[in-house]
Amino acid sequence: MIERLAIIGVGLIGGSLARALRAANAVGEVVGCGRSLDNLEKAHELGVIDRFTHDPGEAVAGADMIFLAVPLGAMRTVMAAIRQRLDTAAVITDGGSVKGSVVADALAVFGAMPPRLVPGHPIAGTECSGVEASFAELYAQRRVILTPLPETDPDALNRVTRMWETCGAEVTTMAVAHHDEVLAATSHLPHMLAFSLVDALAQMRENDEIFRYAAGGFRDFTRIASSDPVMWRDICIANREALSAMLARFGVEMTGLAESIRRGDGVHLLEIFERAKSARDRYVDSAP
Amino acid sequence: MIERLAIIGVGLIGGSLARALRAANAVGEVVGCGRSLDNLEKAHELGVIDRFTHDPGEAVAGADMIFLAVPLGAMRTVMAAIRQRLDTAAVITDGGSVKGSVVADALAVFGAMPPRLVPGHPIAGTECSGVEASFAELYAQRRVILTPLPETDPDALNRVTRMWETCGAEVTTMAVAHHDEVLAATSHLPHMLAFSLVDALAQMRENDEIFRYAAGGFRDFTRIASSDPVMWRDICIANREALSAMLARFGVEMTGLAESIRRGDGVHLLEIFERAKSARDRYVDSAP
Repeated sequence: MIERLAIIGVGLIGGSLARALRAANAVGEVVGCGRSLDNLEKAHELGVIDRFTHDPGEAVAGADMIFLAVPLGAMRTVMAAIRQRLDTAAVITDGGSVKGSVVADALAVFGAMPPRLVPGHPIAGTECSGVEASFAELYAQRRVILTPLPETDPDALNRVTRMWETCGAEVTTMAVAHHDEVLAATSHLPHMLAFSLVDALAQMRENDEIFRYAAGGFRDFTRIASSDPVMWRDICIANREALSAMLARFGVEMTGLAESIRRGDGVHLLEIFERAKSARDRYVDSAP
Repeated sequence: MIERLAIIGVGLIGGSLARALRAANAVGEVVGCGRSLDNLEKAHELGVIDRFTHDPGEAVAGADMIFLAVPLGAMRTVMAAIRQRLDTAAVITDGGSVKGSVVADALAVFGAMPPRLVPGHPIAGTECSGVEASFAELYAQRRVILTPLPETDPDALNRVTRMWETCGAEVTTMAVAHHDEVLAATSHLPHMLAFSLVDALAQMRENDEIFRYAAGGFRDFTRIASSDPVMWRDICIANREALSAMLARFGVEMTGLAESIRRGDGVHLLEIFERAKSARDRYVDSAP
Protein backbone atom coordinates (compact mmCIF):
# COMPACT_ATOMS: atom_id res chain seq x y z
CA MET A 1 0.00 0.00 0.00
CA ILE A 2 1.31 3.41 -0.99
CA GLU A 3 0.20 6.23 1.30
CA ARG A 4 1.11 9.22 -0.79
CA LEU A 5 2.16 8.85 -4.41
CA ALA A 6 3.77 11.82 -6.13
CA ILE A 7 3.62 11.70 -9.90
CA ILE A 8 5.91 14.12 -11.67
CA GLY A 9 4.54 14.32 -15.22
CA VAL A 10 0.88 13.34 -15.34
CA GLY A 11 0.62 12.08 -18.91
CA LEU A 12 -0.16 8.71 -20.46
CA ILE A 13 2.47 6.87 -18.39
CA GLY A 14 2.09 8.70 -15.07
CA GLY A 15 -1.69 8.96 -15.34
CA SER A 16 -2.09 5.27 -16.12
CA LEU A 17 -0.01 4.29 -13.09
CA ALA A 18 -2.24 6.41 -10.83
CA ARG A 19 -5.39 4.98 -12.39
CA ALA A 20 -4.15 1.39 -12.07
CA LEU A 21 -3.17 1.81 -8.42
CA ARG A 22 -6.48 3.48 -7.63
CA ALA A 23 -8.37 0.70 -9.39
CA ALA A 24 -6.49 -1.80 -7.21
CA ASN A 25 -7.17 0.27 -4.09
CA ALA A 26 -3.46 0.35 -3.52
CA VAL A 27 -2.87 4.05 -3.03
CA GLY A 28 -4.00 6.69 -0.55
CA GLU A 29 -3.38 10.15 -1.93
CA VAL A 30 -2.07 10.99 -5.38
CA VAL A 31 -0.27 14.29 -5.87
CA GLY A 32 0.30 15.38 -9.46
CA CYS A 33 3.00 17.73 -10.68
CA GLY A 34 3.61 19.16 -14.13
CA ARG A 35 4.03 22.36 -16.07
CA SER A 36 0.71 22.51 -17.90
CA LEU A 37 -2.11 23.83 -15.72
CA ASP A 38 -4.66 22.60 -18.26
CA ASN A 39 -3.36 19.06 -18.08
CA LEU A 40 -3.22 19.05 -14.26
CA GLU A 41 -6.77 20.42 -14.02
CA LYS A 42 -7.90 17.76 -16.47
CA ALA A 43 -6.14 15.08 -14.39
CA HIS A 44 -7.88 16.37 -11.28
CA GLU A 45 -11.28 16.46 -12.99
CA LEU A 46 -10.77 12.89 -14.23
CA GLY A 47 -9.99 11.79 -10.67
CA VAL A 48 -6.51 10.64 -11.65
CA ILE A 49 -4.91 12.88 -9.00
CA ASP A 50 -6.23 14.33 -5.73
CA ARG A 51 -4.32 17.62 -5.86
CA PHE A 52 -1.57 19.21 -7.87
CA THR A 53 1.30 21.69 -7.83
CA HIS A 54 3.77 23.00 -10.39
CA ASP A 55 6.61 22.59 -7.90
CA PRO A 56 8.24 19.13 -7.85
CA GLY A 57 9.71 19.81 -4.41
CA GLU A 58 6.30 20.49 -2.97
CA ALA A 59 4.85 17.46 -4.75
CA VAL A 60 7.29 15.01 -3.17
CA ALA A 61 7.11 16.39 0.38
CA GLY A 62 5.66 13.62 2.53
CA ALA A 63 5.34 11.15 -0.35
CA ASP A 64 6.40 7.55 0.27
CA MET A 65 6.49 6.73 -3.47
CA ILE A 66 7.62 9.08 -6.21
CA PHE A 67 7.23 8.34 -9.90
CA LEU A 68 9.17 10.43 -12.39
CA ALA A 69 7.30 10.32 -15.68
CA VAL A 70 8.76 13.30 -17.47
CA PRO A 71 10.67 13.23 -20.80
CA LEU A 72 14.27 12.11 -20.32
CA GLY A 73 15.53 15.60 -21.04
CA ALA A 74 13.74 16.90 -17.94
CA MET A 75 14.87 14.19 -15.48
CA ARG A 76 17.93 16.00 -14.19
CA THR A 77 16.07 19.25 -13.50
CA VAL A 78 13.32 17.37 -11.70
CA MET A 79 15.81 15.42 -9.58
CA ALA A 80 17.54 18.65 -8.61
CA ALA A 81 14.18 20.17 -7.67
CA ILE A 82 13.18 17.30 -5.37
CA ARG A 83 16.58 16.52 -3.86
CA GLN A 84 16.15 18.61 -0.68
CA ARG A 85 12.51 17.67 -0.11
CA LEU A 86 12.64 13.87 -0.04
CA ASP A 87 11.49 11.93 3.00
CA THR A 88 14.18 9.51 4.17
CA ALA A 89 11.80 6.61 3.59
CA ALA A 90 10.66 7.77 0.16
CA VAL A 91 11.18 5.40 -2.76
CA ILE A 92 11.77 6.94 -6.18
CA THR A 93 11.35 5.25 -9.53
CA ASP A 94 10.89 6.48 -13.07
CA GLY A 95 9.40 5.50 -16.42
CA GLY A 96 12.17 6.65 -18.74
CA SER A 97 12.81 4.64 -21.91
CA VAL A 98 16.56 4.88 -21.44
CA LYS A 99 18.18 3.92 -18.15
CA GLY A 100 21.82 4.92 -18.59
CA SER A 101 20.92 8.59 -18.83
CA VAL A 102 18.67 8.43 -15.76
CA VAL A 103 21.51 6.89 -13.75
CA ALA A 104 23.90 9.56 -15.07
CA ASP A 105 21.41 12.28 -14.10
CA ALA A 106 21.09 10.83 -10.59
CA LEU A 107 24.86 10.65 -10.17
CA ALA A 108 25.17 14.26 -11.30
CA VAL A 109 22.43 15.53 -8.98
CA PHE A 110 22.92 13.34 -5.91
CA GLY A 111 26.68 12.78 -6.18
CA ALA A 112 26.13 9.04 -5.76
CA MET A 113 23.31 6.71 -6.71
CA PRO A 114 20.58 7.07 -4.05
CA PRO A 115 19.86 3.58 -2.65
CA ARG A 116 16.13 4.26 -2.73
CA LEU A 117 16.04 5.30 -6.39
CA VAL A 118 15.11 2.30 -8.56
CA PRO A 119 15.42 3.03 -12.29
CA GLY A 120 12.57 1.44 -14.21
CA HIS A 121 10.85 1.22 -17.54
CA PRO A 122 7.31 -0.01 -18.18
CA ILE A 123 7.26 -1.46 -21.72
CA ALA A 124 3.87 -0.06 -22.53
CA GLY A 125 2.40 2.92 -24.21
CA THR A 126 0.40 4.02 -27.18
CA GLU A 127 1.13 6.69 -29.76
CA CYS A 128 -1.11 9.06 -27.78
CA SER A 129 0.02 11.34 -24.97
CA GLY A 130 -1.50 13.41 -22.19
CA VAL A 131 -3.56 12.41 -19.18
CA GLU A 132 -6.68 11.97 -21.30
CA ALA A 133 -4.97 9.07 -23.07
CA SER A 134 -4.23 7.31 -19.75
CA PHE A 135 -6.13 4.23 -18.62
CA ALA A 136 -5.93 1.79 -15.73
CA GLU A 137 -5.23 -1.29 -17.89
CA LEU A 138 -2.21 0.09 -19.74
CA TYR A 139 0.21 -2.08 -17.74
CA ALA A 140 -1.87 -5.24 -17.47
CA GLN A 141 0.18 -8.18 -18.75
CA ARG A 142 2.92 -5.85 -19.97
CA ARG A 143 6.54 -6.06 -18.96
CA VAL A 144 8.25 -3.63 -16.63
CA ILE A 145 12.05 -3.71 -16.59
CA LEU A 146 13.79 -2.49 -13.44
CA THR A 147 17.53 -1.84 -13.57
CA PRO A 148 18.72 -1.78 -9.94
CA LEU A 149 22.38 -1.04 -9.25
CA PRO A 150 24.60 -2.82 -6.67
CA GLU A 151 23.87 0.02 -4.23
CA THR A 152 20.09 -0.20 -4.64
CA ASP A 153 18.22 -0.90 -1.40
CA PRO A 154 16.50 -4.33 -1.69
CA ASP A 155 13.47 -2.97 0.18
CA ALA A 156 13.07 -0.15 -2.36
CA LEU A 157 13.39 -2.61 -5.24
CA ASN A 158 10.81 -4.78 -3.57
CA ARG A 159 8.36 -1.92 -3.12
CA VAL A 160 8.65 -0.81 -6.75
CA THR A 161 8.27 -4.40 -7.92
CA ARG A 162 5.09 -4.81 -5.88
CA MET A 163 3.72 -1.51 -7.17
CA TRP A 164 4.03 -2.62 -10.79
CA GLU A 165 2.72 -6.10 -10.05
CA THR A 166 -0.32 -4.47 -8.48
CA CYS A 167 -0.92 -2.84 -11.89
CA GLY A 168 -0.89 -6.28 -13.51
CA ALA A 169 2.60 -6.01 -14.97
CA GLU A 170 5.29 -8.67 -15.11
CA VAL A 171 8.45 -7.28 -13.56
CA THR A 172 11.96 -8.31 -14.58
CA THR A 173 15.38 -6.87 -13.79
CA MET A 174 18.21 -6.18 -16.18
CA ALA A 175 21.57 -4.40 -16.20
CA VAL A 176 21.34 -0.74 -17.21
CA ALA A 177 23.45 -1.03 -20.38
CA HIS A 178 21.72 -4.21 -21.46
CA HIS A 179 18.31 -2.57 -21.09
CA ASP A 180 19.43 0.28 -23.29
CA GLU A 181 20.65 -2.09 -26.02
CA VAL A 182 17.52 -4.23 -25.99
CA LEU A 183 15.31 -1.16 -26.20
CA ALA A 184 17.42 0.40 -28.95
CA ALA A 185 16.74 -2.73 -31.00
CA THR A 186 13.07 -3.31 -30.28
CA SER A 187 11.71 0.17 -29.82
CA HIS A 188 14.07 3.03 -30.60
CA LEU A 189 15.23 1.73 -33.98
CA PRO A 190 11.69 0.91 -35.20
CA HIS A 191 10.56 4.39 -34.23
CA MET A 192 13.44 5.89 -36.20
CA LEU A 193 12.42 3.88 -39.26
CA ALA A 194 8.80 4.95 -39.00
CA PHE A 195 9.66 8.62 -38.49
CA SER A 196 12.18 8.53 -41.35
CA LEU A 197 9.83 6.80 -43.73
CA VAL A 198 6.97 9.19 -43.14
CA ASP A 199 9.27 12.18 -43.30
CA ALA A 200 10.86 10.98 -46.54
CA LEU A 201 7.44 10.50 -48.13
CA ALA A 202 6.12 13.81 -46.80
CA GLN A 203 8.95 15.55 -48.59
CA MET A 204 8.16 14.02 -51.98
CA ARG A 205 6.57 16.39 -54.47
CA GLU A 206 3.47 14.23 -54.90
CA ASN A 207 3.07 13.54 -51.17
CA ASP A 208 -0.67 14.06 -51.15
CA GLU A 209 -1.11 11.29 -53.66
CA ILE A 210 1.51 9.11 -52.03
CA PHE A 211 -0.39 9.06 -48.75
CA ARG A 212 -3.72 8.61 -50.52
CA TYR A 213 -2.60 5.25 -51.86
CA ALA A 214 -1.10 4.04 -48.63
CA ALA A 215 -2.99 0.90 -47.68
CA GLY A 216 -3.80 -0.60 -44.30
CA GLY A 217 -0.38 -2.14 -43.76
CA PHE A 218 1.14 1.32 -44.10
CA ARG A 219 -1.13 2.67 -41.41
CA ASP A 220 -0.04 0.01 -38.90
CA PHE A 221 3.57 0.37 -39.97
CA THR A 222 3.67 4.11 -39.42
CA ARG A 223 1.44 4.37 -36.34
CA ILE A 224 4.46 4.83 -34.09
CA ALA A 225 5.45 7.91 -36.15
CA SER A 226 2.55 9.66 -34.39
CA SER A 227 4.36 9.40 -31.05
CA ASP A 228 5.43 12.48 -29.10
CA PRO A 229 8.35 14.21 -30.90
CA VAL A 230 9.86 15.75 -27.74
CA MET A 231 9.90 12.41 -25.96
CA TRP A 232 11.62 10.83 -28.94
CA ARG A 233 14.17 13.59 -29.34
CA ASP A 234 15.13 12.99 -25.72
CA ILE A 235 15.28 9.22 -26.13
CA CYS A 236 17.57 9.56 -29.15
CA ILE A 237 19.95 11.82 -27.31
CA ALA A 238 19.83 9.81 -24.08
CA ASN A 239 20.48 6.51 -25.88
CA ARG A 240 22.63 7.78 -28.71
CA GLU A 241 25.38 5.21 -28.30
CA ALA A 242 23.27 2.06 -28.33
CA LEU A 243 20.92 3.52 -30.93
CA SER A 244 23.77 4.54 -33.23
CA ALA A 245 25.12 1.00 -33.05
CA MET A 246 21.69 -0.42 -33.96
CA LEU A 247 21.29 2.07 -36.82
CA ALA A 248 24.66 1.00 -38.19
CA ARG A 249 23.66 -2.66 -37.95
CA PHE A 250 20.40 -1.94 -39.72
CA GLY A 251 22.25 0.10 -42.34
CA VAL A 252 24.38 -2.91 -43.24
CA GLU A 253 21.26 -5.06 -43.59
CA MET A 254 19.52 -2.45 -45.79
CA THR A 255 22.58 -1.97 -47.96
CA GLY A 256 22.72 -5.72 -48.60
CA LEU A 257 19.04 -5.80 -49.42
CA ALA A 258 19.23 -2.78 -51.75
CA GLU A 259 22.19 -4.38 -53.51
CA SER A 260 20.26 -7.63 -54.00
CA ILE A 261 17.30 -5.72 -55.41
CA ARG A 262 19.55 -3.79 -57.78
CA ARG A 263 21.15 -7.03 -58.97
CA GLY A 264 17.80 -8.83 -59.11
CA ASP A 265 19.19 -11.53 -56.81
CA GLY A 266 16.01 -13.48 -56.12
CA VAL A 267 17.77 -16.20 -54.16
CA HIS A 268 19.17 -13.78 -51.60
CA LEU A 269 15.93 -11.81 -51.38
CA LEU A 270 13.89 -14.93 -50.76
CA GLU A 271 16.38 -15.99 -48.08
CA ILE A 272 16.01 -12.66 -46.24
CA PHE A 273 12.21 -12.59 -46.49
CA GLU A 274 11.81 -16.19 -45.37
CA ARG A 275 14.12 -15.71 -42.42
CA ALA A 276 12.29 -12.55 -41.39
CA LYS A 277 8.85 -14.07 -41.80
CA SER A 278 9.72 -17.12 -39.78
CA ALA A 279 11.28 -15.02 -36.98
CA ARG A 280 8.27 -12.71 -36.93
CA ASP A 281 5.76 -15.55 -36.93
CA ARG A 282 7.71 -17.47 -34.32
CA TYR A 283 8.58 -14.78 -31.82
CA VAL A 284 6.15 -11.95 -32.15
CA ASP A 285 2.89 -13.78 -32.60
CA SER A 286 3.68 -16.17 -29.80
CA ALA A 287 4.39 -13.30 -27.40
CA PRO A 288 1.83 -12.54 -24.69
CA MET B 1 -22.71 -9.53 -64.98
CA ILE B 2 -19.82 -11.91 -65.59
CA GLU B 3 -20.87 -15.24 -67.05
CA ARG B 4 -17.73 -17.23 -66.52
CA LEU B 5 -14.88 -15.92 -64.40
CA ALA B 6 -11.53 -17.68 -64.61
CA ILE B 7 -9.27 -17.07 -61.65
CA ILE B 8 -5.66 -18.04 -62.15
CA GLY B 9 -4.22 -18.26 -58.64
CA VAL B 10 -6.93 -18.83 -56.04
CA GLY B 11 -5.34 -17.23 -52.98
CA LEU B 12 -6.22 -14.28 -50.79
CA ILE B 13 -6.57 -11.87 -53.74
CA GLY B 14 -8.19 -14.18 -56.30
CA GLY B 15 -10.38 -15.92 -53.73
CA SER B 16 -11.64 -12.65 -52.30
CA LEU B 17 -12.62 -11.37 -55.76
CA ALA B 18 -14.66 -14.52 -56.38
CA ARG B 19 -16.30 -14.28 -52.96
CA ALA B 20 -17.16 -10.60 -53.42
CA LEU B 21 -18.68 -11.13 -56.86
CA ARG B 22 -20.66 -14.10 -55.63
CA ALA B 23 -21.91 -12.11 -52.65
CA ALA B 24 -23.09 -9.43 -55.09
CA ASN B 25 -24.67 -12.04 -57.33
CA ALA B 26 -22.58 -10.69 -60.16
CA VAL B 27 -21.00 -13.87 -61.49
CA GLY B 28 -22.25 -17.09 -63.07
CA GLU B 29 -19.57 -19.75 -62.96
CA VAL B 30 -16.18 -19.44 -61.32
CA VAL B 31 -13.34 -21.60 -62.61
CA GLY B 32 -10.24 -21.81 -60.45
CA CYS B 33 -6.75 -22.63 -61.60
CA GLY B 34 -3.57 -23.16 -59.63
CA ARG B 35 -0.77 -25.57 -58.92
CA SER B 36 -1.72 -26.78 -55.47
CA LEU B 37 -4.41 -29.44 -55.52
CA ASP B 38 -4.98 -28.96 -51.79
CA ASN B 39 -5.66 -25.26 -52.18
CA LEU B 40 -8.00 -25.80 -55.15
CA GLU B 41 -9.93 -28.50 -53.30
CA LYS B 42 -10.20 -26.19 -50.31
CA ALA B 43 -11.46 -23.38 -52.58
CA HIS B 44 -14.06 -25.73 -54.01
CA GLU B 45 -15.16 -26.92 -50.57
CA LEU B 46 -15.48 -23.33 -49.39
CA GLY B 47 -17.67 -22.56 -52.41
CA VAL B 48 -15.22 -19.96 -53.70
CA ILE B 49 -14.96 -21.73 -57.08
CA ASP B 50 -17.32 -24.08 -58.94
CA ARG B 51 -14.66 -26.23 -60.57
CA PHE B 52 -10.93 -26.25 -61.06
CA THR B 53 -8.08 -27.31 -63.28
CA HIS B 54 -4.29 -27.14 -63.16
CA ASP B 55 -4.21 -25.98 -66.79
CA PRO B 56 -4.55 -22.21 -67.31
CA GLY B 57 -5.50 -22.75 -70.97
CA GLU B 58 -8.39 -24.97 -69.99
CA ALA B 59 -9.43 -22.55 -67.24
CA VAL B 60 -9.84 -19.59 -69.59
CA ALA B 61 -11.66 -21.44 -72.38
CA GLY B 62 -15.12 -19.88 -72.63
CA ALA B 63 -14.47 -17.33 -69.86
CA ASP B 64 -15.61 -13.74 -70.44
CA MET B 65 -13.52 -12.41 -67.53
CA ILE B 66 -10.07 -13.64 -66.56
CA PHE B 67 -8.26 -12.56 -63.41
CA LEU B 68 -4.56 -13.28 -63.09
CA ALA B 69 -3.74 -13.44 -59.39
CA VAL B 70 -0.43 -15.27 -59.45
CA PRO B 71 2.90 -13.91 -58.14
CA LEU B 72 4.51 -11.51 -60.61
CA GLY B 73 7.20 -14.06 -61.44
CA ALA B 74 4.56 -16.42 -62.83
CA MET B 75 2.66 -13.90 -65.00
CA ARG B 76 4.58 -14.49 -68.20
CA THR B 77 4.23 -18.26 -68.04
CA VAL B 78 0.51 -17.98 -67.36
CA MET B 79 0.01 -15.54 -70.24
CA ALA B 80 1.85 -17.90 -72.58
CA ALA B 81 -0.34 -20.78 -71.39
CA ILE B 82 -3.63 -18.94 -72.03
CA ARG B 83 -2.70 -17.07 -75.22
CA GLN B 84 -4.14 -19.62 -77.66
CA ARG B 85 -7.28 -20.33 -75.63
CA LEU B 86 -8.77 -16.87 -75.17
CA ASP B 87 -12.26 -16.07 -76.42
CA THR B 88 -12.22 -12.97 -78.63
CA ALA B 89 -14.58 -11.23 -76.23
CA ALA B 90 -12.66 -12.21 -73.09
CA VAL B 91 -11.43 -9.42 -70.86
CA ILE B 92 -8.24 -10.03 -68.88
CA THR B 93 -7.05 -8.18 -65.82
CA ASP B 94 -4.60 -8.92 -63.06
CA GLY B 95 -3.84 -8.14 -59.44
CA GLY B 96 -0.08 -7.70 -59.62
CA SER B 97 1.54 -5.15 -57.30
CA VAL B 98 3.81 -3.90 -60.10
CA LYS B 99 2.37 -2.87 -63.46
CA GLY B 100 5.45 -2.24 -65.60
CA SER B 101 6.50 -5.87 -65.43
CA VAL B 102 3.00 -7.11 -66.29
CA VAL B 103 2.96 -4.89 -69.37
CA ALA B 104 6.45 -6.12 -70.32
CA ASP B 105 5.30 -9.72 -69.88
CA ALA B 106 2.26 -9.08 -72.10
CA LEU B 107 4.40 -7.49 -74.80
CA ALA B 108 6.79 -10.42 -74.70
CA VAL B 109 4.02 -13.03 -74.91
CA PHE B 110 1.49 -11.35 -77.22
CA GLY B 111 3.90 -9.28 -79.34
CA ALA B 112 1.78 -6.18 -78.65
CA MET B 113 -0.42 -5.08 -75.78
CA PRO B 114 -3.75 -6.92 -76.12
CA PRO B 115 -6.53 -4.27 -76.15
CA ARG B 116 -8.66 -6.38 -73.84
CA LEU B 117 -5.96 -6.80 -71.18
CA VAL B 118 -6.39 -4.14 -68.47
CA PRO B 119 -3.51 -4.10 -65.98
CA GLY B 120 -4.81 -3.53 -62.47
CA HIS B 121 -3.90 -3.51 -58.80
CA PRO B 122 -6.30 -3.74 -55.89
CA ILE B 123 -4.68 -1.91 -52.95
CA ALA B 124 -5.82 -4.44 -50.42
CA GLY B 125 -4.49 -7.47 -48.68
CA THR B 126 -3.48 -8.82 -45.34
CA GLU B 127 -0.29 -10.51 -44.27
CA CYS B 128 -2.05 -13.87 -44.72
CA SER B 129 -2.18 -15.88 -47.90
CA GLY B 130 -4.10 -18.81 -49.39
CA VAL B 131 -7.78 -19.19 -50.18
CA GLU B 132 -8.65 -19.74 -46.52
CA ALA B 133 -7.58 -16.17 -45.82
CA SER B 134 -9.91 -14.78 -48.51
CA PHE B 135 -13.13 -12.95 -47.67
CA ALA B 136 -15.83 -11.11 -49.60
CA GLU B 137 -15.24 -7.73 -47.92
CA LEU B 138 -11.52 -7.46 -48.66
CA TYR B 139 -12.08 -4.84 -51.37
CA ALA B 140 -14.89 -2.87 -49.74
CA GLN B 141 -13.92 0.81 -49.62
CA ARG B 142 -10.41 0.02 -50.80
CA ARG B 143 -8.77 1.53 -53.85
CA VAL B 144 -8.15 -0.32 -57.09
CA ILE B 145 -5.73 1.27 -59.53
CA LEU B 146 -6.09 0.39 -63.21
CA THR B 147 -3.29 1.34 -65.58
CA PRO B 148 -4.80 1.21 -69.09
CA LEU B 149 -2.53 1.92 -72.08
CA PRO B 150 -3.45 4.02 -75.14
CA GLU B 151 -4.33 0.81 -76.97
CA THR B 152 -6.64 -0.47 -74.21
CA ASP B 153 -10.21 -1.10 -75.36
CA PRO B 154 -12.55 1.32 -73.49
CA ASP B 155 -15.18 -1.40 -73.20
CA ALA B 156 -12.67 -3.72 -71.49
CA LEU B 157 -11.62 -0.91 -69.12
CA ASN B 158 -15.26 -0.25 -68.39
CA ARG B 159 -15.99 -3.90 -67.61
CA VAL B 160 -13.03 -4.23 -65.25
CA THR B 161 -13.99 -0.97 -63.54
CA ARG B 162 -17.54 -2.20 -62.98
CA MET B 163 -16.30 -5.53 -61.68
CA TRP B 164 -14.23 -3.85 -58.95
CA GLU B 165 -16.96 -1.37 -58.13
CA THR B 166 -19.30 -4.31 -57.63
CA CYS B 167 -16.85 -5.50 -54.96
CA GLY B 168 -17.20 -2.16 -53.20
CA ALA B 169 -13.88 -0.74 -54.36
CA GLU B 170 -13.10 2.77 -55.52
CA VAL B 171 -11.44 2.58 -58.94
CA THR B 172 -8.90 5.08 -60.24
CA THR B 173 -6.59 5.02 -63.25
CA MET B 174 -2.94 5.93 -63.36
CA ALA B 175 -0.01 5.69 -65.77
CA VAL B 176 1.97 2.47 -65.44
CA ALA B 177 5.25 4.06 -64.36
CA HIS B 178 3.53 6.39 -61.94
CA HIS B 179 1.73 3.48 -60.30
CA ASP B 180 5.02 1.70 -59.81
CA GLU B 181 6.59 4.76 -58.18
CA VAL B 182 3.65 5.39 -55.85
CA LEU B 183 3.59 1.76 -54.77
CA ALA B 184 7.36 1.65 -54.29
CA ALA B 185 6.94 4.51 -51.81
CA THR B 186 3.84 3.43 -49.94
CA SER B 187 4.06 -0.33 -49.97
CA HIS B 188 7.26 -1.83 -51.31
CA LEU B 189 9.67 0.32 -49.29
CA PRO B 190 7.78 -0.17 -45.99
CA HIS B 191 7.84 -3.93 -46.56
CA MET B 192 11.60 -3.80 -47.15
CA LEU B 193 12.06 -1.92 -43.87
CA ALA B 194 9.96 -4.39 -41.92
CA PHE B 195 11.68 -7.44 -43.44
CA SER B 196 15.12 -5.88 -42.87
CA LEU B 197 14.41 -4.90 -39.30
CA VAL B 198 13.12 -8.31 -38.29
CA ASP B 199 15.94 -10.04 -40.12
CA ALA B 200 18.57 -7.81 -38.49
CA LEU B 201 17.13 -8.52 -35.03
CA ALA B 202 16.76 -12.24 -35.72
CA GLN B 203 20.48 -12.39 -36.44
CA MET B 204 21.48 -10.82 -33.15
CA ARG B 205 23.00 -13.17 -30.63
CA GLU B 206 20.39 -12.44 -27.98
CA ASN B 207 17.46 -12.54 -30.43
CA ASP B 208 15.20 -14.54 -28.11
CA GLU B 209 15.40 -11.82 -25.52
CA ILE B 210 15.18 -9.04 -28.09
CA PHE B 211 11.85 -10.29 -29.34
CA ARG B 212 10.61 -10.94 -25.82
CA TYR B 213 10.83 -7.25 -24.99
CA ALA B 214 9.26 -6.06 -28.21
CA ALA B 215 6.12 -4.15 -27.23
CA GLY B 216 2.83 -3.65 -29.02
CA GLY B 217 4.12 -0.97 -31.39
CA PHE B 218 6.73 -3.42 -32.63
CA ARG B 219 4.07 -5.97 -33.41
CA ASP B 220 2.12 -3.53 -35.59
CA PHE B 221 5.30 -2.24 -37.14
CA THR B 222 6.52 -5.66 -38.21
CA ARG B 223 3.20 -7.27 -39.13
CA ILE B 224 3.94 -6.82 -42.85
CA ALA B 225 7.12 -8.87 -42.41
CA SER B 226 4.82 -11.88 -42.16
CA SER B 227 3.78 -11.45 -45.79
CA ASP B 228 4.47 -14.07 -48.44
CA PRO B 229 8.24 -14.18 -49.20
CA VAL B 230 7.85 -15.44 -52.79
CA MET B 231 5.38 -12.69 -53.64
CA TRP B 232 7.77 -10.11 -52.23
CA ARG B 233 10.80 -11.50 -53.99
CA ASP B 234 8.88 -11.14 -57.25
CA ILE B 235 7.72 -7.60 -56.44
CA CYS B 236 11.28 -6.52 -55.67
CA ILE B 237 12.57 -7.87 -58.92
CA ALA B 238 9.64 -6.60 -60.98
CA ASN B 239 9.88 -3.09 -59.52
CA ARG B 240 13.61 -2.94 -58.94
CA GLU B 241 14.11 0.43 -60.60
CA ALA B 242 11.47 2.42 -58.74
CA LEU B 243 12.17 0.55 -55.52
CA SER B 244 15.93 1.14 -55.76
CA ALA B 245 15.27 4.85 -56.20
CA MET B 246 13.03 4.89 -53.12
CA LEU B 247 15.59 2.92 -51.10
CA ALA B 248 18.23 5.46 -52.03
CA ARG B 249 15.97 8.32 -51.02
CA PHE B 250 15.24 6.62 -47.71
CA GLY B 251 18.94 5.92 -47.24
CA VAL B 252 19.69 9.63 -47.45
CA GLU B 253 17.02 10.37 -44.86
CA MET B 254 18.32 7.67 -42.51
CA THR B 255 21.90 8.81 -42.88
CA GLY B 256 20.88 12.33 -41.91
CA LEU B 257 18.96 11.05 -38.93
CA ALA B 258 21.78 8.77 -37.77
CA GLU B 259 24.21 11.68 -38.08
CA SER B 260 21.94 13.90 -35.97
CA ILE B 261 21.67 11.23 -33.30
CA ARG B 262 25.43 10.76 -33.25
CA ARG B 263 25.93 14.49 -32.89
CA GLY B 264 23.09 14.79 -30.35
CA ASP B 265 21.47 17.44 -32.56
CA GLY B 266 18.15 17.79 -30.76
CA VAL B 267 16.95 20.64 -32.93
CA HIS B 268 17.20 18.65 -36.13
CA LEU B 269 15.74 15.52 -34.53
CA LEU B 270 12.74 17.41 -33.21
CA GLU B 271 12.24 18.94 -36.66
CA ILE B 272 12.17 15.51 -38.33
CA PHE B 273 9.87 13.96 -35.72
CA GLU B 274 7.44 16.86 -35.75
CA ARG B 275 7.27 16.92 -39.54
CA ALA B 276 6.69 13.15 -39.61
CA LYS B 277 4.08 13.19 -36.88
CA SER B 278 2.13 15.99 -38.49
CA ALA B 279 2.21 14.29 -41.93
CA ARG B 280 1.15 11.00 -40.41
CA ASP B 281 -1.65 12.52 -38.35
CA ARG B 282 -2.82 14.63 -41.26
CA TYR B 283 -2.75 12.16 -44.09
CA VAL B 284 -2.98 8.69 -42.76
CA ASP B 285 -5.58 9.05 -40.06
CA SER B 286 -7.81 11.12 -42.30
CA ALA B 287 -7.71 8.43 -45.02
CA PRO B 288 -10.81 6.31 -45.51
